[in-house]
Amino acid sequence: MEDKVVLLDFWPSVYGMRVRIALAEKGIEYEAKEENLWDKSPLLLGMNPVHKTVPVLIHNGKPVCESLNIIRYIDEVWSHKSPLLPSNPYQKSQALFWADYIDKKIFSLGKQLWNAKGEEQEAIKKEFIECLKIIEGELGDKLYFGGERFGFIDLVLVPITRWFYSYEVCANFSIESECPKIVSWARRCLEEKQSLAKSLPDPQKIYGSFVLPTKEKYGI
Amino acid sequence: MEDKVVLLDFWPSVYGMRVRIALAEKGIEYEAKEENLWDKSPLLLGMNPVHKTVPVLIHNGKPVCESLNIIRYIDEVWSHKSPLLPSNPYQKSQALFWADYIDKKIFSLGKQLWNAKGEEQEAIKKEFIECLKIIEGELGDKLYFGGERFGFIDLVLVPITRWFYSYEVCANFSIESECPKIVSWARRCLEEKQSLAKSLPDPQKIYGSFVLPTKEKYGI
Repeated sequence: MEDKVVLLDFWPSVYGMRVRIALAEKGIEYEAKEENLWDKSPLLLGMNPVHKTVPVLIHNGKPVCESLNIIRYIDEVWSHKSPLLPSNPYQKSQALFWADYIDKKIFSLGKQLWNAKGEEQEAIKKEFIECLKIIEGELGDKLYFGGERFGFIDLVLVPITRWFYSYEVCANFSIESECPKIVSWARRCLEEKQSLAKSLPDPQKIYGSFVLPTKEKYGI
Repeated sequence: MEDKVVLLDFWPSVYGMRVRIALAEKGIEYEAKEENLWDKSPLLLGMNPVHKTVPVLIHNGKPVCESLNIIRYIDEVWSHKSPLLPSNPYQKSQALFWADYIDKKIFSLGKQLWNAKGEEQEAIKKEFIECLKIIEGELGDKLYFGGERFGFIDLVLVPITRWFYSYEVCANFSIESECPKIVSWARRCLEEKQSLAKSLPDPQKIYGSFVLPTKEKYGI
């Protein structure tokens, strides 16, 4: 049986981007279905009744939800090509530790950052920078998080760098001044990896076509 | 080389309990070091500098942090005995999905529940019951979450049932009235699994020796 792979996605979603990169790295053909988050499809609500969020990977009719879980699943099912997670159990535990940190801290604070105002936004910005510096410390002087080549932590973190422009405009700061190594690393990832160019939206488009209209709609 | 395993732990911690169960299921000998959360040891701060939390598993000198990550690591390294995660990739993805849900919702709301008061506590209680009913729906009429035998989701969820008594006393409700199947399932787990009796503290002790003194200390 040939694999049928469908991805329920939303183009500015950092979680969706992760899955797009993983699918591209593995060379998996799939059908992308764009969701309208303000009017979710019966398919999305049926496939992810608990969280009702994108991305959802539907593999031969069966759903897998939550982006890190989806990437792990893809890596295990399509194991013949481009391993994403390290095979060594200790290295794998470290990669998954940082992936969890990125979700709980960096992505979570990023989402709050552009939705806040005034003093609340300043506090979130401060914490966001602190957390970004911690992950920058983990990168250190390495080319990629895993060393010489683009790996799991790179894949998990890189989508949010497409949002940096929006964060900078909304919260009035420069991420490059705060975390120059993260910004160089993001450029390096984009230059090295063809799959990223196809999988990641343009930072200006995220701001102009999603962030700005959403802020206007909700009066943020 | 013989494995040296140390667990930095705190006896009422639901996250610590998970790791204790996993180690017991696998029959792994280890040294438990009890932490004082109000005066954390240099060892804990050095081994988990990012989160500074228990549990930390130190395996031959190298730390693994975050309870779900630790359990996955244990399952992979000591793979010869009592597999914890299903080997089928799809079943594994579903087990990890629910583990993530339990962490993000049930454990997180449980922690908030006994630390809150008044209307805030009522709102948390309402959401806690809703989320517990969702996981109860996943259990359905099965004996265990995975079917006929105690498995990964059971291991991940069961520690919080030792806190139910404290939640009921602090927030004035009956979990058995709301989620009778979860309470029967918890009893079944305890009756069936010897490893649990040794790994899980007594509910009354959690209330009397930890919850009550902590509430008094902080005037909650």
